[in-house]
Order: sequence, then C-alpha cells, then structure tokens
Amino acid sequence: MDRFYNQPRQLVDQMLEGLALFNPVTLCNDPSARIVMRRDWQPRREGCQQVALISGGGSGHEPAHGGFVGEGMLTAAVAGDLFASPGVEAVLAAIRACCGEAGCLLIIKNYTGDRLNFGLAAERAREEGYRIETVIVADDVALPDAEQPRGLAGTLLVHKIAGFHAGRGDSLETVLAAARDTATALRSLGMALSSATLPGNAREKRRSPELGLGIHNEPGARHIDPHDAHEAVQQLLATLDSGDDGPFVLLLNNLGGCSPQEMQLLARECLQQWGIERVALLIGPAAMMSSLDMHGFSLTALPLSDARREALEAQTTAVGWAAPRPVAQATTFTPRFSEAEASGGGRRDAERAALIKRLAQVLRDSEEALDRLDAKVGDGDAGATFAAGAGAVLTALDEDRLSTGEDARLASELGQLFAASMGGSSGVLVSILMSAACSALEAQRGWPAALAEGVARMQHYGGAERGDRTLLDALIPAVEALEADASLQDAARAAREGARATAAMTRAGAGRASQVPGDALEGVTDPGAEAMARLFEALAAR
Amino acid sequence: MDRFYNQPRQLVDQMLEGLALFNPVTLCNDPSARIVMRRDWQPRREGCQQVALISGGGSGHEPAHGGFVGEGMLTAAVAGDLFASPGVEAVLAAIRACCGEAGCLLIIKNYTGDRLNFGLAAERAREEGYRIETVIVADDVALPDAEQPRGLAGTLLVHKIAGFHAGRGDSLETVLAAARDTATALRSLGMALSSATLPGNAREKRRSPELGLGIHNEPGARHIDPHDAHEAVQQLLATLDSGDDGPFVLLLNNLGGCSPQEMQLLARECLQQWGIERVALLIGPAAMMSSLDMHGFSLTALPLSDARREALEAQTTAVGWAAPRPVAQATTFTPRFSEAEASGGGRRDAERAALIKRLAQVLRDSEEALDRLDAKVGDGDAGATFAAGAGAVLTALDEDRLSTGEDARLASELGQLFAASMGGSSGVLVSILMSAACSALEAQRGWPAALAEGVARMQHYGGAERGDRTLLDALIPAVEALEADASLQDAARAAREGARATAAMTRAGAGRASQVPGDALEGVTDPGAEAMARLFEALAAR
Repeated sequence: MDRFYNQPRQLVDQMLEGLALFNPVTLCNDPSARIVMRRDWQPRREGCQQVALISGGGSGHEPAHGGFVGEGMLTAAVAGDLFASPGVEAVLAAIRACCGEAGCLLIIKNYTGDRLNFGLAAERAREEGYRIETVIVADDVALPDAEQPRGLAGTLLVHKIAGFHAGRGDSLETVLAAARDTATALRSLGMALSSATLPGNAREKRRSPELGLGIHNEPGARHIDPHDAHEAVQQLLATLDSGDDGPFVLLLNNLGGCSPQEMQLLARECLQQWGIERVALLIGPAAMMSSLDMHGFSLTALPLSDARREALEAQTTAVGWAAPRPVAQATTFTPRFSEAEASGGGRRDAERAALIKRLAQVLRDSEEALDRLDAKVGDGDAGATFAAGAGAVLTALDEDRLSTGEDARLASELGQLFAASMGGSSGVLVSILMSAACSALEAQRGWPAALAEGVARMQHYGGAERGDRTLLDALIPAVEALEADASLQDAARAAREGARATAAMTRAGAGRASQVPGDALEGVTDPGAEAMARLFEALAAR
Repeated sequence: MDRFYNQPRQLVDQMLEGLALFNPVTLCNDPSARIVMRRDWQPRREGCQQVALISGGGSGHEPAHGGFVGEGMLTAAVAGDLFASPGVEAVLAAIRACCGEAGCLLIIKNYTGDRLNFGLAAERAREEGYRIETVIVADDVALPDAEQPRGLAGTLLVHKIAGFHAGRGDSLETVLAAARDTATALRSLGMALSSATLPGNAREKRRSPELGLGIHNEPGARHIDPHDAHEAVQQLLATLDSGDDGPFVLLLNNLGGCSPQEMQLLARECLQQWGIERVALLIGPAAMMSSLDMHGFSLTALPLSDARREALEAQTTAVGWAAPRPVAQATTFTPRFSEAEASGGGRRDAERAALIKRLAQVLRDSEEALDRLDAKVGDGDAGATFAAGAGAVLTALDEDRLSTGEDARLASELGQLFAASMGGSSGVLVSILMSAACSALEAQRGWPAALAEGVARMQHYGGAERGDRTLLDALIPAVEALEADASLQDAARAAREGARATAAMTRAGAGRASQVPGDALEGVTDPGAEAMARLFEALAAR
C-alpha cells in the first residue's frame, strides 16, 4: 500500500460519504448523480426566496466542491469521476432538487466538459421552466492571450461572494452580477514540482518545475528553474501581479502535496513580495482546490472592495472554507534574558568555598575513571561532562564569582553554571536539581529538604525512577539519609551502596544506558551514580 | 529544486515570519529565542487575571505550536530548531514576557529535551517569583507499557481546553486541573508510509507501513501490511480504541504528506469503524501536528463531557485550530431524473416526419466521407458520431416516438436523443442547440430565431467562434440567411460556402482540430461544417 485508499473506483463515493458524516449535507441516493446538498435546504418552502447556487466538476479537487456546500456558500455541488465532468442528468437532478422560485445560479469552471454538461443542464432546466443563470470562471492567467483560460481556485471566491448575496436574499440578477463581477476580476496562477497521481497509478511523477499549470495534469505554460521558494514566487508574480495598487485579497492554495512548512514559507514569500501594504486579507494557506497529491500551489488575487470584503468575511458553515485573515506587518518585542553567568553578588564564606573546591576537584579528577565506565554502557563522555561542570565551578571560585555565604543564592548560581558548562541532558538535570533546591532554601527549609525537593524535580522532568540505573540510584539514598538526620558518613555509605547496586541492574529504564542490551550492562557501575558516590564520600571526609 | 524552501537553515525563522504576517501575534526580536506571543497580551496590565499558557517544542510540526497562539488557546509558543527542543533561556524569556499575577501553565510534550528545558525554565522562573505549573502530555498509546509515551497531536486538545479556562479567567489551579484531566484521558496513535524529510536532505524515504510512530522519524511500534485504508484504520483502532461507550471527540491529524483525498477517505474509515453513535465531534481532518512531509496520519480520541465540549467548541482566533464538527449519520435524498428517452407524447405530422427521416439518412450515409475528413485533422470519428445521432433519430421515427407535429416538443426530444446517442462534446453541443431552440419555439419565435438562439448558446457553452474551424462556420451563415428571410436554397449555399472556407483555415481555435499543426489542416474541410452543409443542402432539395 503506497497511499491510504481503498478500491480506486470507490474513492469518489467514499470521500463523499466521509464528508457527509461531519457536515450538515445530504447525498443523492442514486449512484449516477453524485450530489451533495445542504441538509436544511427547502426550495419549495413557502416564502423561500433564496437563490440556489450549484457548482461542481470533476472530483480530485477536494475539498472542492462538496466541502463548500453550506450556509453562505453553495446550495449543492455535483461531483464527477476523478478529473471528469459530471453528466448532464446529474446536474439537472441537482437543479430540480435545489431550485425554487428565486432561481438558480450555476458556477462553472471553464473546462469544455463542465461548460457543456452544466450548459446543457441549464438549457434543459429552462425548458422545464426553471430560472437559471450561469457564470463561467476562467481565472487562470498562465497564457495572456488564451481564448479559454482555465478555472482554478479563484472559483471559490465566486462561491463565497455569490453565496453571501444569495444568503441574504438578493435577487438572481444581483447574485449573478456579483458573481460575474468577481469572476472577471480574478487572477490565478499555479506552479508545481510534480504531477498529480491518479489512484491505482504508480505514485508521484516528479517533473521539472512548471509555471501556469492546470489542476488536471495539463502541461504548464512554461518550464522554469527557480533556485528556491523566493525565486519561485518571484517568477509566479511576474505573470500574476497586474501591478494595481490594491488592496487585494490573496488566496494561497495547496494543490495537495505541499507540506505545511512549505505553505507557511510560501505565505511569507507571497505576502512580502506582493507587498504587505497592498494585501488586506489572506485566505489560506490551505488546500481548497487541490489536484490530488500534486506538489504545488496556486495563488489567486482579487481586488478588494468594501462589498467584497463584507462578503468574504461573512460566516459560512462550509467546512472547506478558510476564513480570511487580516494581513499586517509583523511586530516584535524585546525579550528579557538572564544575566550571562553567576555574578556572585552575595556574601562570601571561605570555609564553604574550600569545601566546594574540594568537591569540584574530586569530580574533575574522576574524569578518566567515569569515562571508562561510560564507554562500556554509553558514549563514553560522562566523565568529561561532569569534569566540565567541575571546571566551571573551579574557575568561578578562582574569579570569586560564587556567593558562598548565602545558600539559596549559591544554589541558583551553581545551577546556572552547570546548565551553561555541562551541556546536554546531564547539565540540565543537575541544573534543575540546584534550581529547585534554591527555591526550597529560600523558603528556609535547609539543605537536606532542599536536595530532596531537587531530586523530586529531577525525577519529574527527567522521568527516571530509582532502579533505572542513573545517578539517582546513589543520590536518592544519600539524600534520604540526610533527611533522616543521619551523619554525612552514613549518607556517603548509602550513596556508595546505591552506586554498587547499579552494577547488578541489567535493565536501564531511562537515560544513557536505556538503548544498551542488558548483558552489556552487567557488572558495570553507572557512571553518574559513581560520580555521586565519590562526591558524598568527599563530603564525608572533611 | 525539489521542495518550496529557501536556505534550509532559515526555514524556521522564515516560517514564523510568515505566520506573523497574517496572525495577530508578535515575535521576539532576538534570534536566539523564537517566541510567538499574542499581540494583545498585557500581563502587567492592571487587573489582568488571566493565566498565561505557554507551549512549544521542536519546529517541523506546523501549525504547531505558533499556529495555536491566539485568544482562547496559547498565550505564547516557543519554537526550537527542526525536531529540536527550544533552549531554557528561550522558554524563560517567554515566561517573563507572558506571566502576570495569575501565573503561567507550561504545556509540555513528553520528550526528554522538552521536559528538561521547559522544566529547568519552570524552576528558574519559580526562583524569580513567578507562579508556574507544568503539565506533561504523553498521549501516544503505541506501546501499552511504555514508561515514557510520546506527546502527539492530543496536546492540541490540552491547549484548547486549558485555553478556554484561562480565557474566562479561571485560576491557575483550575486551568491546571482541566489540563491534567485532559492529558490523562487522551489516547493518540499514528501511522505512516514514509519518513519525514528534513530540508536539505533527499526527499521522501518510503518505508513499509508503520503503526505507532512518533513525529520525529522515531521508529514505529511495529510494521504492518494493511491491504487498504480500511484495513489500515482497522489495525490502528485495534490498539487505539479503548472500547468505552463514549461519546468521544476524535482528532484526525494529517502528518503532512497525505492528500486531501486520502484524509477525507480516512475520515470516513475512522468515523464508520469507530461507530458514528460513539463520536460526537470530529476535529479535522487537518494538518495540525505535522511531521514535515511525512505521509501519514494520527488519530486522537478523548471522551467528551459537557465541560470538554463547551471548551472545545468555544471560539478561538488561533489560525491552526480546526473547529470541531458534529458527527451524524449521513442522510440521502431521491433525485428526480428525466424520462429515459423521448416519449413522443405530442402530435404527429407525417410530412415533417418524412423530412426529418431524409435529413437523418443523409447524415447516416455521410459517415464514411466525414470520417475520412476527420482522419486528417482529428481522431477520425466525426462521421460515426453524427451517424449515431442520425441512427437514433431513425429508430425513434420507426418506433413512432417523436412529436413531429409540435415544434418545441420535437426540438426537446431531438436534443435528448442527440445527447444520449452521440456521446462526447458533439452530442452535448447539438443537444444544447436543440434545447435552446425548444425554449425559443415555446415562446413562439419560429425556427430561424430558435436556431439562432441555439447557435448562440452553443457558442456560449462551447466557447467556439466563427472562424474557429468548427461546424459553426457552416451553421452560422445558414442560420443568418434564414433569419434574413432568405430561401432554403440560399441558406444551403451559405452553409456550403462556409464549409468550403474552413479548408483554408490553418488555425483551429476550439474543438477537435485545435491540437493539430496548421499545415496539416490546409485544404481539408472541417467535417462538422461539411455535415452542416450536407444537411442544409438536403433541406433545400425537398
């Protein structure tokens, strides 16, 4: 399976079934006429004076057109097979189902099949006494002198504007005039890097970038070779942009295969290159008139009057519609960052400074031993990581930048040193330990409770538990001992015991050793736990 | 160029710039802290009692998370590099910019980097006196016993529900409780047919279908081999569906590379297989938590209480949010089709029947000659097409199914016969001619005016003009002659002259010959025009 399809032949019907499950539409129960109609539409209700709007065409352009059926947009959509116009009888059945006394407007994309089938249906419906008007949308500007420009995504703006007028009860003449006026003013252009793949065919024919292509794998107007997205949009706008002052509404349409990232970048390029001051509204980026999985986009521009703006911004229940968003220059704000490093703004305590120095030296001197342990179970840099933190502490002491006489401040300064110097997860975890301890020390809770709080936070954010073969296996028993008023010597023994136990753990639940097979772990002390044991032993030895 | 990118390294910043052009957000002006914040947010405004909500994580999941910043959702989002957690200082700067007296909730996806960096930022912010709470979202159910399930698209429902509570001024405790309660109840699962391609890498690594994969190319929980979309969803639900009664809200998320068609089909499969009666709301299908161009989707299920429903359905200005849609069984309606074929319900006229029979015989007998002409300029079936129409008329006459004694009715019946028997564009065009003529005849305008009306409609829908090398080149002068009260003989001469002129036309503006090089056309009469000339000559010969 290379795509999420069932039987290719069932695709159109199954897509319509899907749509009808989460939209207030009703489907024609005859498979020969794929009609999606507003569920609440009652053309023969007394006093129903709303013009019906019908559009449609080949399938493969979802959400067009069924996704644009709803209050404020289409009354019904008629779907053909993939890339094939629906038949005359299907369109005619839609007219009969929708059209009341106020009449009906057919909105037709400018393809021969659609023109002929919708056209004949219109003529037949007139024979039957219905009031029918048609508007043909030909918004493609790929070929400036084309006699029959294609209908592209701009058609959706005709749906929306006509739908607004129909929804507020305007006459068929008024709805038609608004639709024609819009259709005449639309300019659209597409660009793609691939063809669309029909279901059942081999996937994704890349093709050299083409400008001015249709939505049915018709060849583009010309091959282009843009260097990047910026240049691609530049080349598109060279043809699309009429140069008028605006303001414009732009519709940025994903042809189906662009990623959200590409579309967001293309939005930047289109808006900036068009000129923010000339764009009032952006619709999308969104896949609204797609071409199966075609890796491309189209841009539609429409000059924006107050009347058009009101019509485009009006509510609709149609699921495919992306509400227009006002466009404006971005604003920025200035962040407040932390001080670059521990500044040592608090009091000093020489004895405490000497203790910290001794602990840091022990860690620094353990680099090789810890690396050797880590080489067996991890990437061999545990010693270097701890040594980096220790080195930063020693430097800060040398430069008299630690507030050794104030517990909370010292914890905060150490936390920032560790985060900046150790790097990676270990640095952040040790920094979390010190930072949480700081908050507890500020609340006058003393070092044992502060360390316990820090350990709890390490577990919360780091996700490791005791027994997961991490430094916690030595740290937790030592801190528990201190909290129980045991001596430093007892705490050191608890840490050592905890470190030793890691050598027997053959399952690592978190951290560096969790990717290593169990038997490789056996007999090897966890380097983090070893570091903790050495620290507590140094602390007890003073 | 194989994707619409500029320099890969600029992608994240340029995407955020794009977002800020059509959303009321403000961006941090320091490139080391990519913060997207509500433009209207004033945490230090007197009386601002709203809790700030901050989320974020690696980029590459657009519209997450910047697209979910807005009234009713996030206050700010912090973006890292592609698939990499943002740094501690960036998160901390976001907290300082957003957090007022009401405090701040950090919503964190359960990845080590995010937990640690957001966690340390939370601890630091607490040190600075901010009221901070955190919720970690781990909604992936790929591995039932996973100690650290990943955070997936379900995170967005936490944003929405917490955002609703924060927006109405609930306390930090209440917002936190709603967020935790939601996070605990979420179940998500993903499936993909390809990896995500990082910018600058070769595009699109297909991989065998995987179930239970993450959003950073982590391997899936297991390989699967579904036959089609139906089976793929079946396998997904086997793990995802807890079997509870519901009602549920489902979120159907495009991981970035599924086409709109696939997503609409997957919506059908997910809703039908989950059971319409167990689903109250559907969010999407939409790309909300994508993984670059990954060809896959994820489904998230959340049991729906009244409170959650209110929170999910509340308005938000966040551009990435797809409003939930009520789910209900589809309804259908019965279309009214036309009668199967001309029924000949009107009066008869023997002389008129004889004339029609003669005309039809002429066309039928011209099959070979017309095909020969068409072989030089088209696909060689023009004669067969006209002969098919003529044959249908002869059969209808034999079976006495034509209302030969009533002009308008006859025109309508002929129009339907031609559409059903001739096929393709020609059949529809000739049918449009007869159908439009019918409406004019009903208005008592006589055959010449009726034919002129029909010709005008053919031109309107068919798009061809006189001189485009079609049957119009013979038909228009003949009809113009009739309208000017000329004799049938003069009309026939005008048709013949018009047909002859097509042989000199080396450019075909519309219709079958428009794809043929000019010099191949020279000297060849258009087969459609020839058919018209023969018809009028037969008419004149009576």
